[in-house]
Amino acid sequence: MTDMLTLQPDRYFDPEPRKKELAMHLYGQVASKPLVCPHGHVDPRMFADPDYQFGSPADLLLIPDHYIFRMLYSQGIPLESLGIPRIDSAPVEADHRKIWQIFAEHFYLFRGTPTGMWLTHELHDVFGIRRKLNGRTSLEIYDQIADCLAKPEFRPRRMFEQFGIEVLATTDAASDPLEYHKAIRDSGWKGRVVPTFRPDGVVNLDRPDWKENLKALGEVCGYEISSYRKLIQALEERRAFFRSMGATATDHAALTPFTCQLADDEAEAIFQRALQGAATADDATRFTGHLIVENARMSTEDGLVMQFHPGSYRNHNPVIFGRFGYDKGCDIPIRSDFTQGLLPLLGRFGNDKRLTMILFTLDETTYARELAPLAGHYPALRLGPPWWFHDSLNGMQRYRDQVMETAGLYNTVGFNDDTRAFPSIPARHDLARRVDANWIAGLVVRGIVDMDDAEEMIQDAAWRLAKQAYKF
Amino acid sequence: MTDMLTLQPDRYFDPEPRKKELAMHLYGQVASKPLVCPHGHVDPRMFADPDYQFGSPADLLLIPDHYIFRMLYSQGIPLESLGIPRIDSAPVEADHRKIWQIFAEHFYLFRGTPTGMWLTHELHDVFGIRRKLNGRTSLEIYDQIADCLAKPEFRPRRMFEQFGIEVLATTDAASDPLEYHKAIRDSGWKGRVVPTFRPDGVVNLDRPDWKENLKALGEVCGYEISSYRKLIQALEERRAFFRSMGATATDHAALTPFTCQLADDEAEAIFQRALQGAATADDATRFTGHLIVENARMSTEDGLVMQFHPGSYRNHNPVIFGRFGYDKGCDIPIRSDFTQGLLPLLGRFGNDKRLTMILFTLDETTYARELAPLAGHYPALRLGPPWWFHDSLNGMQRYRDQVMETAGLYNTVGFNDDTRAFPSIPARHDLARRVDANWIAGLVVRGIVDMDDAEEMIQDAAWRLAKQAYKF
Amino acid sequence: MTDMLTLQPDRYFDPEPRKKELAMHLYGQVASKPLVCPHGHVDPRMFADPDYQFGSPADLLLIPDHYIFRMLYSQGIPLESLGIPRIDSAPVEADHRKIWQIFAEHFYLFRGTPTGMWLTHELHDVFGIRRKLNGRTSLEIYDQIADCLAKPEFRPRRMFEQFGIEVLATTDAASDPLEYHKAIRDSGWKGRVVPTFRPDGVVNLDRPDWKENLKALGEVCGYEISSYRKLIQALEERRAFFRSMGATATDHAALTPFTCQLADDEAEAIFQRALQGAATADDATRFTGHLIVENARMSTEDGLVMQFHPGSYRNHNPVIFGRFGYDKGCDIPIRSDFTQGLLPLLGRFGNDKRLTMILFTLDETTYARELAPLAGHYPALRLGPPWWFHDSLNGMQRYRDQVMETAGLYNTVGFNDDTRAFPSIPARHDLARRVDANWIAGLVVRGIVDMDDAEEMIQDAAWRLAKQAYKF
Repeated sequence: MTDMLTLQPDRYFDPEPRKKELAMHLYGQVASKPLVCPHGHVDPRMFADPDYQFGSPADLLLIPDHYIFRMLYSQGIPLESLGIPRIDSAPVEADHRKIWQIFAEHFYLFRGTPTGMWLTHELHDVFGIRRKLNGRTSLEIYDQIADCLAKPEFRPRRMFEQFGIEVLATTDAASDPLEYHKAIRDSGWKGRVVPTFRPDGVVNLDRPDWKENLKALGEVCGYEISSYRKLIQALEERRAFFRSMGATATDHAALTPFTCQLADDEAEAIFQRALQGAATADDATRFTGHLIVENARMSTEDGLVMQFHPGSYRNHNPVIFGRFGYDKGCDIPIRSDFTQGLLPLLGRFGNDKRLTMILFTLDETTYARELAPLAGHYPALRLGPPWWFHDSLNGMQRYRDQVMETAGLYNTVGFNDDTRAFPSIPARHDLARRVDANWIAGLVVRGIVDMDDAEEMIQDAAWRLAKQAYKF
Repeated sequence: MTDMLTLQPDRYFDPEPRKKELAMHLYGQVASKPLVCPHGHVDPRMFADPDYQFGSPADLLLIPDHYIFRMLYSQGIPLESLGIPRIDSAPVEADHRKIWQIFAEHFYLFRGTPTGMWLTHELHDVFGIRRKLNGRTSLEIYDQIADCLAKPEFRPRRMFEQFGIEVLATTDAASDPLEYHKAIRDSGWKGRVVPTFRPDGVVNLDRPDWKENLKALGEVCGYEISSYRKLIQALEERRAFFRSMGATATDHAALTPFTCQLADDEAEAIFQRALQGAATADDATRFTGHLIVENARMSTEDGLVMQFHPGSYRNHNPVIFGRFGYDKGCDIPIRSDFTQGLLPLLGRFGNDKRLTMILFTLDETTYARELAPLAGHYPALRLGPPWWFHDSLNGMQRYRDQVMETAGLYNTVGFNDDTRAFPSIPARHDLARRVDANWIAGLVVRGIVDMDDAEEMIQDAAWRLAKQAYKF
Repeated sequence: MTDMLTLQPDRYFDPEPRKKELAMHLYGQVASKPLVCPHGHVDPRMFADPDYQFGSPADLLLIPDHYIFRMLYSQGIPLESLGIPRIDSAPVEADHRKIWQIFAEHFYLFRGTPTGMWLTHELHDVFGIRRKLNGRTSLEIYDQIADCLAKPEFRPRRMFEQFGIEVLATTDAASDPLEYHKAIRDSGWKGRVVPTFRPDGVVNLDRPDWKENLKALGEVCGYEISSYRKLIQALEERRAFFRSMGATATDHAALTPFTCQLADDEAEAIFQRALQGAATADDATRFTGHLIVENARMSTEDGLVMQFHPGSYRNHNPVIFGRFGYDKGCDIPIRSDFTQGLLPLLGRFGNDKRLTMILFTLDETTYARELAPLAGHYPALRLGPPWWFHDSLNGMQRYRDQVMETAGLYNTVGFNDDTRAFPSIPARHDLARRVDANWIAGLVVRGIVDMDDAEEMIQDAAWRLAKQAYKF
């Protein structure tokens, strides 16, 4: 046991020497390219204030990151002992060194996981750590990170620049006034941080906070959202505002990919039932399905790129949801049926070149069966990268394996880091670039593409496709 | 950029030297074996006329091949600009050099796809092209192919012989008079081209052209198909006729693998509703499900091998279907449930050794979960090779990976090229033989089978199993 | 053709030399560790009698093993000719040398299958066979095995000791008096053989033998199971008895993962309908779903580890079921929905640390989509190893590939041999340990974990996790 932490320069590549050599060569061509981050959940607040500080190492790396604490929780560690805030404001562990110690003692749980790979990269490259994180090294590493965080070069804006981020999109509710985005613009800082319009909160009737979200939307619009018609009006106004603030895209979640086209009076009737708390589950499905089509219609008019990622059963654990609320690692995927679900939308807008619709899935069985055939035919469709649980070394390999032969590289949109963990962004892009280089090297070494093609493909995968698809 | 086109002799094999050496050895044993083509869509007309000419390079390679133009369409290229004929006979691009130029400029879309691999092989080996197809080389290559096509050795019969095709099965509607098959026989030419009986057009009530197909069937039978009873009679007569013309197999598509056994009067009632245009979606499902069982019954009696490939949602894009009709790259797979769907059929005929039923799927999740367990138990069942979107390097690897351990090699039926692109046939068999050699080499190098077994297995995979299963 | 049988010392490992070297090193650390066998179907009778003999080679290796005879049957060999006993006691082949000859002539069917790998290992290592099994060598090998079986060192207890089995769990009906387990205990023999409580026969109302099972349960309990309440009482009593006999776990099958919480009077009403033969399919689904939750509740109270493996459509082939009964290789997997199906159970007990629930699946699409996310969150959940058709070289690789990144190694429970074929146990563990060593070597060679971690992981995978999870 040496506890020594190293990062191999040839990590993640397949071991066969000729293939590895090709992969290293291709990776070398994009390793230091700017990072294009078109889809993520970083808090814009941290760039609005030039002196923003991240807090403790636990504040930065653990407490906001459900990828991490879900794994600890799965082994019986209470979320309270990790400092996760409760809805009822009951006390939780406040000693961040204690929290960090628990984390370090259980870091072995992340062996072979993407979270383990990202964190290791992050600790090594961003914070200069050279010992493995475990119960023995815990506090020494804590102190080392804390020292870093006290320095000016660890302010978010400085890290943004040092990471080489070309553009970073945040994700923002329809009612968000985008005040932090405004502050960033007004500050004269040159970092490009843009919002993304995500109207789920007012579109998905079955959310516990729907009425609350509707009220907030009404407030920012200056009129009550008392009807379906008003909701459509509000969405159109907010989209225009988001565009004026630099947004190039919208983002939509739903339980399933079901879409449908309701008559206006049916949509209005469902909306009124929902206002009275009388909407059924079927109402919610149909209303969301209809609003997805309506947002596609708006995208053909205003040019915002539309992202759609159905398939997550949100807040599966009622105990945790009741105690800690949203986004606590309890969202679990379900099966999706894109072929039949998207038919109404694609029948109307699938051939419309004004629309770019980017699909994501948590159901990998749809990669080869549905998504690649759909994207390999409809001009309006593109496929997003492997998402959430599948944004991993193996997950990315399965995606390449199952999508590329039917959809081709050029109906996909490169990489999304999709993270709220800002300092993990370089690690995530680096992993993706390595996996892509390894994939393309595999094509070269088997005589499927030649080196000229491969060198174009790695540039496309690493940044070009993302820039094009998201109109940056 | 050299634009030089090469085909590596060791292409598609895994790079590890020992495994590659074994794969090359195994491939070498079957590389020049005759091609057995038991399932495909080549037009028999081209062999009926000894002087048949293919037309322009675009006529030959692009306009009839939805694998190619679907990818171009997905990137926003109108089908009209590719010369795809419209139903309404509105003018489409007629300058085939222009069409070819568009294709060449977008050939990069096919990087890493099977279409890219097949075309590259075809251009290199069949037409002697030595430059990569792109915007710069487009017209030079067009001319070179056109020169070839003008020569007598590029008549279909000469190519058939040169390709080493041992037998080629076409796919023909129940009402087809098989006049081209008759002409081939009568001509004294020795090439073996046989029909396959495909009654979908008269069996699937929900097809837009059902009545039309029924009428055609009535005409060829000499009586009106005015009842379910007449339909059964007509199917049995046509099967006998197809057998007399050399057919050894039938072919059946359906949206799902659902089967059922209807009482005769229920089947008759549905048929009559359909004639009156009053059949429901459920009627159509049940009628098709019943006719699948009826065709299995007929196969136990007449010995025709039965192929069944459910799971494609046909004509998904209403705009393209309305403008260009069937088979335009808009068929999209859906989930399939074989275990429960086939129960009525297998309960009745699954243990009957007179039946050989070959199953295909577009839902790869059924490989390991349903199809391999079913084929590894029922004597009447065999599994067809990976089909359509999955007839690719990765697709074939996934099939071997997921099917073999439970079904074994000997419950599968070798390779089908399944193509309407006649000159791509050698490329398709070559790719399959290489993938199989690579798979078997992987078994040898890991000590799972020895070299004696491996040498038998590659012969089985490359041609023996296909000949046996299809009774050639 | 040499017919020579060899077992490569480096078999099953990937061929790349550096990776193979690492895999060999890791495998070497666990190759001779004791075998922990927490889930299987070995008959305890064989250990109750110190002089138990296995019968003929066909009795031992073929007749009880549906993995083997299902494959032979799939190629048209009647089960009668293999000596499989019929329900109606009609005569079947009794000449075991003839049976063995058929098996040997068709042993090529198992090329590349796990059954082929296990049998080859077993013949080579357990019986010292050095020739390949085929039609030529058949009877020579038969005699060699028969000679072995006549020797004292081939009595089950001696083999148990020689195999290095640390603990072996059997699977036993709720009504089982566990007389053989008692005899083993009373005999003073030190081998640890423990029962597992499997109440399916009395819990799944739709089983043809449900009433019969209920009667047997009543007899062993000393009162008639005339009500739902009595059934619950009986289950609790039997669980306590099984625990007193050394059981640490229960085992539950169902067609789907559906769970629900019924009110007592609803459960009672269904039970009474079932007694009167009037229960519907929906009744059966709901009753089983409710009893799964009830058994979880009991596990929180008595500490028995709960195993749940839904997804097999039992007795799919009515002809074979009618003629030969249960467990004849006719159980075929179907799709499973764990995310929604388990919600009622997990909402109630998923956060309860007193419960360990181990999930198995035959639907591999749920690995990455549902099971890994669930197990990577709920403290009560662990994932069982790849099961039944997926307990194979490729199947185990797919499991590692799809489960580990989200659930991590530590939410899984190591290996189960799950077999009724006692002499195949070392082969099965050996294969699993090799696959695991190969997997972990792949992590090391790509720089994902270091050698210190790898050496811990291989111990965890090979035996530690199984011991912990099953409380041995």
